[in-house]
Amino acid sequence: MKNKYFSVLPIGGVEEIGSNMTMIRSTDEDIIIDCGMLFPYEECFDINYLIPDFSLLDAARVKNIIITHGHEDHIGALGHLLKAFPDLTVWVTPFTLHLIQRKLEEHKISMNYQVYKPGQELSFKNVDVTPVHVNHSIPETSGLIVRSKGREWGALYISDFKVDLASKHELPIDFTTIKQKLTECTQTAYFIDSTNVIYDGKTTSENELHADLEHLMNRPENRLFITLFASNVHRMNAIAKMAKASGRKIVVMGRSLWTYMEAARESGHTEITADDLFMADQVRGQSGKMLIFLSGCQGDFLSALRRFSFGEDGSFKPIPGDVVIFSSKVIPGNEKKIYRIYNKLTQFGAEIVTAYDHLIHASGHPGKEDLKLLLNNFKPNFYIPIHGESYMLRKHAEFVRENYPQISTHVIHNYQEVILGDGMIKVEDHPVKEPRLIHGKSLEIEKTQISQRRKMATQGAVFISYHRTIGHMEVTTVGLPLMAQEHMELLKKRLLKQINSDLSSRDETYFKDQLKISSRQFYNNLLGYKPVTEVHLY
Amino acid sequence: MKNKYFSVLPIGGVEEIGSNMTMIRSTDEDIIIDCGMLFPYEECFDINYLIPDFSLLDAARVKNIIITHGHEDHIGALGHLLKAFPDLTVWVTPFTLHLIQRKLEEHKISMNYQVYKPGQELSFKNVDVTPVHVNHSIPETSGLIVRSKGREWGALYISDFKVDLASKHELPIDFTTIKQKLTECTQTAYFIDSTNVIYDGKTTSENELHADLEHLMNRPENRLFITLFASNVHRMNAIAKMAKASGRKIVVMGRSLWTYMEAARESGHTEITADDLFMADQVRGQSGKMLIFLSGCQGDFLSALRRFSFGEDGSFKPIPGDVVIFSSKVIPGNEKKIYRIYNKLTQFGAEIVTAYDHLIHASGHPGKEDLKLLLNNFKPNFYIPIHGESYMLRKHAEFVRENYPQISTHVIHNYQEVILGDGMIKVEDHPVKEPRLIHGKSLEIEKTQISQRRKMATQGAVFISYHRTIGHMEVTTVGLPLMAQEHMELLKKRLLKQINSDLSSRDETYFKDQLKISSRQFYNNLLGYKPVTEVHLY
Repeated sequence: MKNKYFSVLPIGGVEEIGSNMTMIRSTDEDIIIDCGMLFPYEECFDINYLIPDFSLLDAARVKNIIITHGHEDHIGALGHLLKAFPDLTVWVTPFTLHLIQRKLEEHKISMNYQVYKPGQELSFKNVDVTPVHVNHSIPETSGLIVRSKGREWGALYISDFKVDLASKHELPIDFTTIKQKLTECTQTAYFIDSTNVIYDGKTTSENELHADLEHLMNRPENRLFITLFASNVHRMNAIAKMAKASGRKIVVMGRSLWTYMEAARESGHTEITADDLFMADQVRGQSGKMLIFLSGCQGDFLSALRRFSFGEDGSFKPIPGDVVIFSSKVIPGNEKKIYRIYNKLTQFGAEIVTAYDHLIHASGHPGKEDLKLLLNNFKPNFYIPIHGESYMLRKHAEFVRENYPQISTHVIHNYQEVILGDGMIKVEDHPVKEPRLIHGKSLEIEKTQISQRRKMATQGAVFISYHRTIGHMEVTTVGLPLMAQEHMELLKKRLLKQINSDLSSRDETYFKDQLKISSRQFYNNLLGYKPVTEVHLY
Repeated sequence: MKNKYFSVLPIGGVEEIGSNMTMIRSTDEDIIIDCGMLFPYEECFDINYLIPDFSLLDAARVKNIIITHGHEDHIGALGHLLKAFPDLTVWVTPFTLHLIQRKLEEHKISMNYQVYKPGQELSFKNVDVTPVHVNHSIPETSGLIVRSKGREWGALYISDFKVDLASKHELPIDFTTIKQKLTECTQTAYFIDSTNVIYDGKTTSENELHADLEHLMNRPENRLFITLFASNVHRMNAIAKMAKASGRKIVVMGRSLWTYMEAARESGHTEITADDLFMADQVRGQSGKMLIFLSGCQGDFLSALRRFSFGEDGSFKPIPGDVVIFSSKVIPGNEKKIYRIYNKLTQFGAEIVTAYDHLIHASGHPGKEDLKLLLNNFKPNFYIPIHGESYMLRKHAEFVRENYPQISTHVIHNYQEVILGDGMIKVEDHPVKEPRLIHGKSLEIEKTQISQRRKMATQGAVFISYHRTIGHMEVTTVGLPLMAQEHMELLKKRLLKQINSDLSSRDETYFKDQLKISSRQFYNNLLGYKPVTEVHLY
């Protein structure tokens, strides 16, 4: 390849949903797009999250990061990045800036930033980047048009979007700028969202939900509860306006909802003022018509929704006549948690209303018909699906190949660099770095240690200590059936017998190992599994 | 209530899906329907299952159990029941008998049984029970018509069914017998499946899948893989016949598939003979056209599907050109496991085909249109939704009330006894007994112990021992980040300092407690959480 103009190198978000992070590399500098978190497949009770590995980043070359929007899978690892690269300039829009600053303040991390406007051309050493407005499920989402200085190459990078041409909340996706900017380029490539490609149709517009939401807000019951993704500020704003119009007091339960509403107010995305909103304890014991927003539509452990549903909230407990509206979908993996909430609410006599009953949720990602609208606006020479599980990327590529055979389509994975050269692209492999697992005080925890924890969760633990001089033994079990504790004296007897006949003269390591083996064998005969066992010897 | 004819008392399966078990109670005896297992909501890595509590069962009154069909949520706890009540007579059909015997033999449990035929009237002391054939996703599924001797009352109990009027595999649901037997009764009640009531339409017939399955079997690729619920013998039989007709060798991977096919052969539900089926190692290295059945469509840890998809099977590894067909749905809670399999297969270059792409899966449960067909055949006086989560039961009742206001509809939960008296029903509460958690060698494990395990999984464990005479301390951590292990010397130093200044003269309990508190505090400062901590003192 003679000339390389720039390249696109995803280090997260391709073949998985989450931890989105991509490098735009050119001769003199690397620009980062987004820095998100991911929840692991092999769960450990929701306590961990994953962040991309940063070892490919070189502080001498990486000076800028552009944030496309404020979802956690795009900003959730930014604090970790800024700790490692404190001099980065973060390019961001006002709403997203508010969200990021709020999080960074909690962790006492400072940040250099620049606010960008959609349509504004950001000029870097070898490329110009034009953020373009796209529709999604959070305000201020951008796609990025990256172009070489000589316009030999132009790439459109949209990790999250849908086409919402008639939204009342925001402008439609800016097809005009996309077409205009890319038409100026000799060669073009698309890097496009695959999340919803399985869906054949056109993704529902936010507007289409209004009829059913309004119908629900006008129900006669005094207490309506509603849960939704906290970041869907446009929907929350629309619902709050409807509730206000129908004479309801608006109550907001859950910190995340307050945060997003505050960000929305400060950046002009809502007409709802602080005076319109009440905290739960401000209206405790009041009757009259209310709409109560609940955070935690995925059933998260400490959320307002879960607390309320389980009857554990101090201000509101479910009672017959309550209506609880789920203006959301179930993210795969959360089904059981959410069904449990449905059950609890029903058992308290509350009625639940979901997107099965009414048109009250719309995806933020493109179905096949949305993709067609994008491609009919402007057809690139090359097409690379991103932002999706492996099988979605493949389905996405198959769809494009079938419908647009003139476009050259490539399926890549994380750590494959797409190099844009003269009239062609080249895909180059980098060694794959596994994402890092974070737990507790933003600390990394190794996979081997998680595997130890999993063993204790599935098999319990046994602690044995033995004092050789006085011949005394103590045994503690954690997480074993009570019947196993009743057998503990038998275990001790066996181990002491073994010590007397076999071990008394042996060295410490052998002694400890044998006690461990015998104890695990004992419990395996009794229970059918071998607990994690640790031995101390004196 | 003057006269009580009999009552229906569910002790599992109502307000949850799984562990189905119901008592039919009358003056002189109690008859049991089914005895199934349930997987818990709060998971512990898939190692546990729940069984109903048997303490309401009285050996003097309980002599008979009738099994409606062979799914695990109906037979999975039978072994536990027979251990406690070895003299029970188990009423069963041939296919289900084969499945049960196979399981009991493994656990060396014997069983008295009687084989029943659909339509046959089983006469007990106070009631007659007529099993009627219904359609479902496993052969030989029955509903039960329970009638008092004087025909004052008749109840139809169908925990699992769909209406498949044109099945090529089996007779349609026996509406005639239902109508005839219940018409003879003065009062009638329905106890009906709620699993799929959220679905407005008519559940797809197995036949409707054949066109797409046949299309897939005729694809040009040599290696087709297919996974499905092993118990769906009719579908497996249909697919095998198609594959045979298209000149494919049929390979079966996974024990459960062999078991069900054997049961199907012995009870006349398949034309596929043992000679038609090959084990994976019989065809290892062969080329030519094949259809390979894989067990484990839910991504189960040790299944053939998972082993194959991860490239860990000795006989078959995924290669580009392979087609892997999922003739199944994702059971809620298994999404992440299955998406991971989709990804792995795609990364190996295999193509995956799911029910999103073709009509290749049908539910075994009734949508609203199925329920209408049942109710249009015969309308009872009373209606009680069963077999479903709480919110499904409520939606089910709302549907019946809206469409059949003349029927009296009651939502109950487990341990509510529905007493059928003269012209009325009465619901009586019994103290709710929590299901029992089983782990390892079919042993019960207490919830408190599972909670200990969860703590170790989320926070790790620390084991401390201290020898007062020699002043020596040992500390072992399990499942803590490696950086925490580096700080262990500091912890020891702190604890020893505390011992010298504070603890040396204190009693053992206080001493141990203080060490525990200090250690947990130390790790909380370091990591942000407190590990489970045990202390031994000498």
